[in-house]
Parts: sequence; C-alpha cells; structure tokens
Amino acid sequence: MNIAVMGYGVVGSGVAELLEKNHDQIVKKSQQDEMRLKYILDRRTFPGDKNESLVVADFEKIISDDSVKIVVETMGGLHPAYEFVLDCLNAGKSVVTSNKELVAEKGCELLKAAKEHNANFLFEASVGGGIPIIRPITQCLAANDIDEIAGILNGTTNFILTMMIKQGMTFEDALRLAQKNGYAERDPSADIQGHDACRKIAILAALCFGKHVYPADIHTEGITEITLADVDYAAAWGGVIKLIARSKKLENGKISAIVSPAFVGYGSQLAGVDDVFNAILVRGDAIGDVVFYGRGAGKLPTASAVVADIIDCAQHMKERKDFGWGEGEEGYVSSYLDIETSLYVRLTSDSKEEVLEQANSVFGGVKALHRDNAPDNEAAFVTPAAAEKELREKLAALTGAKIESVIRITDY
Amino acid sequence: MNIAVMGYGVVGSGVAELLEKNHDQIVKKSQQDEMRLKYILDRRTFPGDKNESLVVADFEKIISDDSVKIVVETMGGLHPAYEFVLDCLNAGKSVVTSNKELVAEKGCELLKAAKEHNANFLFEASVGGGIPIIRPITQCLAANDIDEIAGILNGTTNFILTMMIKQGMTFEDALRLAQKNGYAERDPSADIQGHDACRKIAILAALCFGKHVYPADIHTEGITEITLADVDYAAAWGGVIKLIARSKKLENGKISAIVSPAFVGYGSQLAGVDDVFNAILVRGDAIGDVVFYGRGAGKLPTASAVVADIIDCAQHMKERKDFGWGEGEEGYVSSYLDIETSLYVRLTSDSKEEVLEQANSVFGGVKALHRDNAPDNEAAFVTPAAAEKELREKLAALTGAKIESVIRITDY
Repeated sequence: MNIAVMGYGVVGSGVAELLEKNHDQIVKKSQQDEMRLKYILDRRTFPGDKNESLVVADFEKIISDDSVKIVVETMGGLHPAYEFVLDCLNAGKSVVTSNKELVAEKGCELLKAAKEHNANFLFEASVGGGIPIIRPITQCLAANDIDEIAGILNGTTNFILTMMIKQGMTFEDALRLAQKNGYAERDPSADIQGHDACRKIAILAALCFGKHVYPADIHTEGITEITLADVDYAAAWGGVIKLIARSKKLENGKISAIVSPAFVGYGSQLAGVDDVFNAILVRGDAIGDVVFYGRGAGKLPTASAVVADIIDCAQHMKERKDFGWGEGEEGYVSSYLDIETSLYVRLTSDSKEEVLEQANSVFGGVKALHRDNAPDNEAAFVTPAAAEKELREKLAALTGAKIESVIRITDY
Repeated sequence: MNIAVMGYGVVGSGVAELLEKNHDQIVKKSQQDEMRLKYILDRRTFPGDKNESLVVADFEKIISDDSVKIVVETMGGLHPAYEFVLDCLNAGKSVVTSNKELVAEKGCELLKAAKEHNANFLFEASVGGGIPIIRPITQCLAANDIDEIAGILNGTTNFILTMMIKQGMTFEDALRLAQKNGYAERDPSADIQGHDACRKIAILAALCFGKHVYPADIHTEGITEITLADVDYAAAWGGVIKLIARSKKLENGKISAIVSPAFVGYGSQLAGVDDVFNAILVRGDAIGDVVFYGRGAGKLPTASAVVADIIDCAQHMKERKDFGWGEGEEGYVSSYLDIETSLYVRLTSDSKEEVLEQANSVFGGVKALHRDNAPDNEAAFVTPAAAEKELREKLAALTGAKIESVIRITDY
C-alpha cells in the first residue's frame, strides 16, 4: 500500500521519519504486505534530504496515482488543504490529517465525502498531539452519554501561564521565553488569543455531541490580559489560572462552548498540568471523569498520532469506519452569557470598602480575596454562581470602581 | 444481534442496565438493527428483578443458541469462567470480559482460540475499569515502540494510602474505612497484597511488549507493611507512597515487571492520583509520556467499558480485530533483583550515627532523611541507584542496625 504526505514541515517530516523507523511494526499492525511512502507534496525542494527523491510539487501526481490509497495532510491552513483533501476523498483515497483548522471548519463536509466514497477521514493528531483522544471518545466511551468535555488544549499558553505561576514571570517575559524555546511562533496570536484551543474544542464538541460546531460560534478569550495580580488571587482562592476550553450539553438540546482563562482548584486533575503538556477531561454518565494527559504538540508525538491513523486506515480499507457527525445549525451553541458561572473580579477604587459592601449586597454575598503587597486601592472577590449576563449587569452597575479583570471559575 | 451475560453481579447487572438505558445509541453505534440481552447466566435467582425472566442456570442454553453472537463474562474467578469462555470462542461467539484473572492467566490461549474461530476476545474492562487503556495501547499508540508502562491500578490500596497520607490514619484504620465505604472486600487480601494490581500489569505488559506474562513471574509486594513513619519520610524526600505496578522493556529482549509500594515525586502525574482513582502512564519512543486517569472500578464505569467492547465486537463481526500476543517463555521476566533502582531505607539502631556513616561509605553516599518526632534510635536514607541485588547485599552487611522498612523509588 502506498502513502503520500502533503506538506513536509515539522509534522510531515516526523511522519516520514516514523514510517521508516518503525516500518516493520507498522506493516505488521496494518495487516499489509508493505506500507511505502511514495510521494511528498511540497513546493519547496529539500536538497540532501533522504526523502528528496519523493518530493513532488504537483498535486496531480498524487490524485492520479491509483496505487496511493492513503494521503496524509500536514500542510496546515485552510487552502489549498481543503481542496486537496476533498479531491482525495472524492477519488476514494483515505485521508489522515493533523490540521485542526481544516477539521474544525470543514469536518462535517469532509466526513460526508469520505462516507460517500467509502474512504476514511481520520484526524487523531488534530487535537492533543500525541494524546489519544479522538478514538477513545468515539470508541472506548461509546457506551456513555458524554455530558461535558474540558481541557487544556494549547501547550504554548499553558507554558506561559506555568512560568507566570511558578516563576512569577510577567506575561511578556514568559512569552519571550516560550518563543526562545521554540514553543511559540514569531506571531503567537493564534495561541495566545485562544484560536488554536477554540478549533480543538470545536472538534471535540462535534465528536461528543454529534453536530458540527463552528469556531466562530465559540466565545474565545486569550491570556494576554492575565496579570501576576490575578495569579496571586487565584492562589489565594485555592488554585491556578489555566486556559480552559470547554463544552457542555444543555437541557434544551443546545450546547455551551467557550475558551477562556479560568480559575481551576488545586484539587483538580487539570491544575497540575504544567508546561507544554495538555490534558482533556471527559465527563460521562456512566464513567464519571476520565482524563487524558500528554504532550499536546511536537514533531514525534503528533506524527505518532498520524501514523496510528494511517494504520487504522489500512486496517479498514474494505469496511470503512463509521464515524462522523451531522450538520451544525444556527443557535446550536448557546451564548456564553446565558451559561451559569461564578466570576472572579479584580477592581480598583478609591473607596474599595464601600464597593465591596455594594458587591456583597448586589450579588447576595461575595467572597473577598486578599494578596500580599496589593495596592491600597485594589480589591478582589468571587461572586456566587448565576447566568453570566446577570453577573455582568450587576458588575457594570457597581459605582465608584474600575473593573480591572474578570475571570471565570470552573468546577473541574 | 443477541447478547448473553454470564454472572449477574455488580458488573454484569451494570452491563444490563447500560444496555437498556443507552439502548438506541448502542444500536446505532453498533451498526445493527437490534442489540438485545437474551440470557443472563447465574446460579442464583433474582425474584422481582426486571431481568428475572432472562436468567438461566444452564450454560448449554447459551452455547447452543446460534442467535447469541456476543457473550459477556463478568463472573470473575478462573473456573468455570475459563471453560465457558473457551467454549464460546470455539463456537465462534465473540467474548467480552472484565475478568482480569482470566486474561492474565489464560489470555494468550483465549486470543488464539478467538483468532482460529474468527471471533473477537476483548477485555477493556479488565484493567482500569472505565478508563480506556487497552484500546489506546493497541490502536492509538500503534505507531510507537512502547518502552515502559506504569500505573496505580488498584483503587482500594490507593484509597488506603491516600487516607494515610492526607489524614494521617494508620493502615488498619484506613482499611476499615475502605471496607465501610464498600471500596474493600471483607477479605481484602487480593487488593492489599498487590495481587489485583499484579494481574493488571501482567495484561498491560503482554499487550505492550507482545508476549504473555504470567502473574506468578511478577514480584509482588502489597501495602500492609507501610507505616506512617514511611509516609512522613516520603514527604521529607519530596513525594508520596503509591502502590505502583510497572513493566519495562530491557536491552536484552527481556522485560522487568514488578508490583510494590514506591516513592513517587510530587512533580509526577501519578502523585496527585488520590482516593479510588487509577492512572496509567505509558512511555513511548515517539509520544513521550501519556497518562490515562479515571475511576478504576465501580459498577457503571466498568460496565461502560464492557459495553464499548460489545459495540466494537458488533462492528467487527465480519472482519475480526487482529489483536493479541504470543506465548510467554521461561525467564522472559527478569528477576527484580537485577533491575536498577534506588531504595529508601528506614532502620533502628542504638548507634545510628555510626550506621549512617557505614551506609555512606558502603553505598558511596546516601541521602539522609529526617522527620519530626522520630524516635531517637531511628534513621532513614535513600541510596544511589544500582542493581537491587547489590543494594540488598550491602544493606544486609550493615552492622548494628535493624532494617525496618525498604521501599523502591521511581522516576515517573
């Protein structure tokens, strides 16, 4: 069986490396006579690379070669990845991708095309890097009604927050260190503004709850506004700040879905997930909480997830895996303002005692937080739980205070 | 498609409950027209139970009914579970089991029988209760060479150790509380002496490394000798005591496999696994460390793993899953004495300063540990890493000291 890889970057070259390194084992597990990398699609050339001779610049080579049964897409970005993948599926070739943007935006359509042409479209590597999560959700947890899924899905932001929490670094210094270590790109916005985590939770929510979820429908906040003051107050409250992506089934058939910094209590399995590690918590009716932890990114972890999908494709050439979700619909994702939460609030005021009294009365009791060396005019508290809209309105009505920071509180 | 359940105890009744509760979803995911529970095998009668009419006492009913394609074994114990399961597989029926003893002792043979008769033999529920671990190892991590696996595989002992660590309870009191809470059986020996964890690591090692591992070949120590003094010294060292089951691929083609209490550093993902929870760490060449966490026991978590296997069987009726391991062999599991480790040692001596000096000289430097309120004649230290045999010999040669406790140290 022949394989083509589209995009010879970090992940693509890792896939080529693993296909060679663990060749015999992969052939055996695939139940094939041979598993051979035949083409690498890339516009660049790679003089001296050991796979140099496999590199082609023209997609036609791949699509027109009937001996290529499995195509790996590790190009990233929406175009032309989308067009290429759709062409492959329409030609009956199975596709494995690590491209979260592609799956989050076009997953439903591509899964449909795969089904129509008896091909597989698999994307274990698109969420959680090497952590097995897509397959456990679809298979191992098949007997469960999944109620909720939440996770630390972006290693870059988790590294930055860890440096802020453990080393007392500012956001800016931690970001620079992440860039220096190769954990953050020169333009880090997709990570630090939460878009990467947003695409991943869109995929997980679609998988758990059965309908496509568009990233644009998910309220997304990054970590750029988090300060060391907030980190200190989180500790005073009894936890840490993490960038949490989460989605929950609601009573009315809709779902919630949000990405934002959140207070996570020390007792949580998510609180101890540090550095570039990821973790995903699945809450099911029968199973309770299950957590999957590991490296959410990196060349070989991600490539190993891609190769596992390749093996799965090879095993299911005749009988494709039935796997997918339905179309999304307008209003399927509830506004975050309608979801119940508690909020942490930090404010400055020249009359902070009066403001705290106001808050106590308006919210029906708040829990004041204290930190060492706070400026005299600073106050912080945690509200009781209520619909966020209601909390925001009450907050806006407080007089004599400037709201500096508002962070949600989770119960994971 | 018809299903039979053998053994209507905690797990068996949970399976029946889930098959009814999530019926529509299970039928859909199984890609079948119907998934019906037809028989429950049990010697007891269940007057008033809603499945009373399905209960049969005679195994012949099941084996002779060709409409029964999947048989669930939740009887526990080796006999007659083994004979019944073998008969089912030989008759071409797929079998799903939660019985770790059966898989650990007879897995290789039963997998072979399944293969010969084009049936499936699945046992996700035998390790880690509801935590998906068997399938991720075989599928999601297929692209990895797995180097090592380790875990907290027994909820009862983990609960007892958690109570000792967090509440300062003695072993005896913690065991009584576990029994009161229903976490420990009246005869708790299989749990507290490590046999339950031993069976589970035997299964995981077979799966990871490809050859059957017999529980009898795994050196197994329980937690009955652990004292609060040891708990205190673990804290002084910077960690906690956990009952760790672990297995590792060695350079010479053999493996190590052991179950014993061990010091686990606070930084480890296993250190925060408390109460009845389980966690399993898999270390692969490409993936690094991946950890799976959740409830390792309990009616519905375990039943949900069984039902996931039932669905998997139903999906793979025509093309069975190729899945298994080879025969074990004499000497395949190395003696624990040949494995390199560090040891924590607690001793009493009337001349403890001299003993510590001896130890320092014999081991080439030890790290002394201190705890509050230690008796005057007590000393504790951690040795450098070396083959355990060598460490034990040196320990035996110390003069003027009584060794009270020896616990291994892990680097997970």
